[in-house]
Amino acid sequence: MSETITLRRPDDWHVHLRDGELMAAVAPDTARHFARALVMPNLTPPVRTGADAAAYRGRIEEVTAGTGFEPLMTVKLFPETNHEVLAGAKEAGVIAGKLYPQGVTTNSEDGWSDLSALKPAFGAMEELGLVLCLHGEHPDAFCMDRETRFVEELLPGIVRDFPQLKIVLEHVSTRAGLDAVRAHDNVGGTLTVHHLLLTLDDVIGGGLEPHHFCKPIAKRPEDRDALVEAALNDASFFLGTDSAPHLRHTKECPSGCAGVYTAPVALGLTAEVFAQHDALDRLEAFTSERGAEFYGVPKNEGTITLQRGEFPVAEEYGGVVPLRAGGLLSWQVG
Amino acid sequence: MSETITLRRPDDWHVHLRDGELMAAVAPDTARHFARALVMPNLTPPVRTGADAAAYRGRIEEVTAGTGFEPLMTVKLFPETNHEVLAGAKEAGVIAGKLYPQGVTTNSEDGWSDLSALKPAFGAMEELGLVLCLHGEHPDAFCMDRETRFVEELLPGIVRDFPQLKIVLEHVSTRAGLDAVRAHDNVGGTLTVHHLLLTLDDVIGGGLEPHHFCKPIAKRPEDRDALVEAALNDASFFLGTDSAPHLRHTKECPSGCAGVYTAPVALGLTAEVFAQHDALDRLEAFTSERGAEFYGVPKNEGTITLQRGEFPVAEEYGGVVPLRAGGLLSWQVG
Repeated sequence: MSETITLRRPDDWHVHLRDGELMAAVAPDTARHFARALVMPNLTPPVRTGADAAAYRGRIEEVTAGTGFEPLMTVKLFPETNHEVLAGAKEAGVIAGKLYPQGVTTNSEDGWSDLSALKPAFGAMEELGLVLCLHGEHPDAFCMDRETRFVEELLPGIVRDFPQLKIVLEHVSTRAGLDAVRAHDNVGGTLTVHHLLLTLDDVIGGGLEPHHFCKPIAKRPEDRDALVEAALNDASFFLGTDSAPHLRHTKECPSGCAGVYTAPVALGLTAEVFAQHDALDRLEAFTSERGAEFYGVPKNEGTITLQRGEFPVAEEYGGVVPLRAGGLLSWQVG
Repeated sequence: MSETITLRRPDDWHVHLRDGELMAAVAPDTARHFARALVMPNLTPPVRTGADAAAYRGRIEEVTAGTGFEPLMTVKLFPETNHEVLAGAKEAGVIAGKLYPQGVTTNSEDGWSDLSALKPAFGAMEELGLVLCLHGEHPDAFCMDRETRFVEELLPGIVRDFPQLKIVLEHVSTRAGLDAVRAHDNVGGTLTVHHLLLTLDDVIGGGLEPHHFCKPIAKRPEDRDALVEAALNDASFFLGTDSAPHLRHTKECPSGCAGVYTAPVALGLTAEVFAQHDALDRLEAFTSERGAEFYGVPKNEGTITLQRGEFPVAEEYGGVVPLRAGGLLSWQVG
């Protein structure tokens, strides 16, 4: 007798698919498990306009052809991202704009340093009904305080000045971040799989683990526990894996890249977390419902089934080391 | 005109010289700048007895012959380290015993997990006048709290039960650690060069920096600032570099080794810190006097001179990446 769970097909509300050869290696991992994914625009050069997004979507569709996967597109926000640019982006199917604080994550060296310069973009997005996705870390803060200082010092002003703007605080990593999302009706939060599993001890507490290194950095055990509680129970939070492939040699080196690759294991690991809390009946809400509700898009048709068992995780997927490389999953799609 | 500073020959009160080929590559870096160094016993297998220490000292003397360098020897403490073992160690010239908490640093998997089991060893050391060197991290704590929990939960009992035992809290990394040293007359503290320079931001705040990864992990900016203030001004604290060579490939990898290699740059970097605080006149106390006073050994004869300038730091020393690899030192021995 086999133990299984069947879910409405899920969405990943935050993913990095990259481009070119790396995209061809990793995008099928996402397309195999998710009906849709919100694709981050931090390419080099970035996805800035509707034309950029349409071209990128075309390249993603080439490498995921035949899977039924639908990439949901974003643009990266800059001071020069005006109403015209954003209206064109919406016309091209873009549903969200992404804001990176300067220098705090992969390819964010061109992000904002002066929030007020983004006000025209925020106003246009509010008017057009585009969602603002925030990498919510204060660029001047100590690493462990970046999210807290962002939500305390910067987020309240955006919420106040743009009351109709829908905002997603992405990859929430702290209790302060959870509290900030809960404080506002128009703010939702994505939770990654790795932040539900890891703490800073898993990065630097034993040997140094480059494949657990991400931004925001995994925080304290009490933060991780609060994130799990939110995933299980809180309608404001939904799955956004921030699955971020980097080739092994760009992580196992000086100045190693930030990002955890979870696409092939994300649903299995999330099911494990929910199973540990005897909450598999709530898994579908987190993976397949709350995000669609927040973004105001229809829920997916069709289902996906996970099995319970002992499923080995490969050491690498296309040169990228996944979370739990070489270990076992107790749930997996299949 | 050249700017120079001349110091009494310094001591390094905490160094890892390793063994075999790696020792031959790195020990001369220490011997070139330091008259004496307290050599850690965490070899595989560890230095447990006077005979082990005498043999290890002989191997060190072979690779540092002709430099005038004097290795000061330690043994690693275990529950079975009894009075007889410690008396024999003292007879062989050992001056200190080192205690590692289980599993928190390189080659400490065989360290203590039950402090009370060490009481016979502490009592014998107190009687024999051997110094207790502590890697002061609580093995069960979250990485950022390990030192604080050690000095709050474990150190007070040792100090209370062994009032004549001289104790060194090594590589102090937090304000709580500084406060604990200051609270007791018989407790001193070593400060590493890297903890005077780095914070956690330098390990995980930008790209991941394996060559800045150490135990205890570098802490918050306010901790680092307090450590610098102690180095400049407080007689209880003296230089112990914890220079810890690991070959590059054992750091730039999964489960990377903890340790920062500073032997060839330690004095130059320490001079930089003191110069930045207009305190070069106090450098000698930190590098060459306070430690000898604490350990009750004569201060070194002779002097060493540092020059001000722009001195390039090599990318590697014998396959080991030093602190500030490829950068410039503004002071250097020469």
